[in-house]
Amino acid sequence: MIEIAPTAALLLIDLQRAIDHPSWGARNNPNAEARGQALLAAWRASGRRVIHIRHDSLEPHSHYRPGQPLHAFKPGFEPIPGESVVAKSANSAFIGTGLEELLRSSGHRQLVLFGVITNNCIEATARMAGNLGFDTILAEDACFTFGRDDYRGIHRTADEVHAMSLANLEGEYCRIATSEALIHSLSGAS
Amino acid sequence: MIEIAPTAALLLIDLQRAIDHPSWGARNNPNAEARGQALLAAWRASGRRVIHIRHDSLEPHSHYRPGQPLHAFKPGFEPIPGESVVAKSANSAFIGTGLEELLRSSGHRQLVLFGVITNNCIEATARMAGNLGFDTILAEDACFTFGRDDYRGIHRTADEVHAMSLANLEGEYCRIATSEALIHSLSGAS
Repeated sequence: MIEIAPTAALLLIDLQRAIDHPSWGARNNPNAEARGQALLAAWRASGRRVIHIRHDSLEPHSHYRPGQPLHAFKPGFEPIPGESVVAKSANSAFIGTGLEELLRSSGHRQLVLFGVITNNCIEATARMAGNLGFDTILAEDACFTFGRDDYRGIHRTADEVHAMSLANLEGEYCRIATSEALIHSLSGAS
Repeated sequence: MIEIAPTAALLLIDLQRAIDHPSWGARNNPNAEARGQALLAAWRASGRRVIHIRHDSLEPHSHYRPGQPLHAFKPGFEPIPGESVVAKSANSAFIGTGLEELLRSSGHRQLVLFGVITNNCIEATARMAGNLGFDTILAEDACFTFGRDDYRGIHRTADEVHAMSLANLEGEYCRIATSEALIHSLSGAS
């Protein structure tokens, strides 16, 4: 069983409406939102810290630019009173933000992450979290990504992109877990 | 043609003998060392800054631990007088080092990177370089990696791993170039 410290923080990454725009193409993990909401509910019930990472794009035409309708949090992932929101404009949640200082000053040495997209902002944030010395766990079934071509022009499905990203992360930067295993740990069941 | 600023810095990543240990398995880009040495020679001839990033592992049994014979730089990639060496013990060259401050204080806003391995220390460093605002260019044919299984257990060749890593980086964190194109730019040929 994964031990989740009472001081662990849950980081939700970029769960904003813009990720549902059809221009992204075909995604994987169709149940990621349901799994993420279940983990979020269990986390809140346990009284642990929740931090929402929000992408505030500096690009004029981005759906993630503050003021755009798709910049808003996805339904079911809105912060509630007492939860922190950290705005970023790079991929990694640790760049240009006070996140590292917030975590260290509050004694959060263990992090659980989920959100979007696996191989971009999730991976950039998880790589930095691990390298900065945080005990980092990724709830992979509460993340998703999209199919894309690799650099040689070979199309990779969303599942393939997701699985390659997780392989890069696992053991080197973080641990990988399912939301179910994490919820089980939070419940204190043996 | 890629414009290379007079103040650009070349970063060689983890080009140490340990990367030739047979335990790594099958690699790609068999000419990476030759391409990297050609780029390094052209870079030195242009008078631009060279910075060697060296991995100093903290793990007792790692070949990258200082004092181990395989910790040494690979032949052809040894620093020469006047070149900087930055030691790291995480994957990203920006974590736990003075690299960002060194680059900013010396006015290096553009970086060219090569070395090993594509999807690990190269990718971690390139992602951070781009997110920190450096104009970052990766000389991809002077990098290499190894085959591995993805998270679902599907084996990916070194070429496949390399191509997926480059796709994650390109346009989002850095530009991708060949060593030949960069040498051409350094020569000032039109």
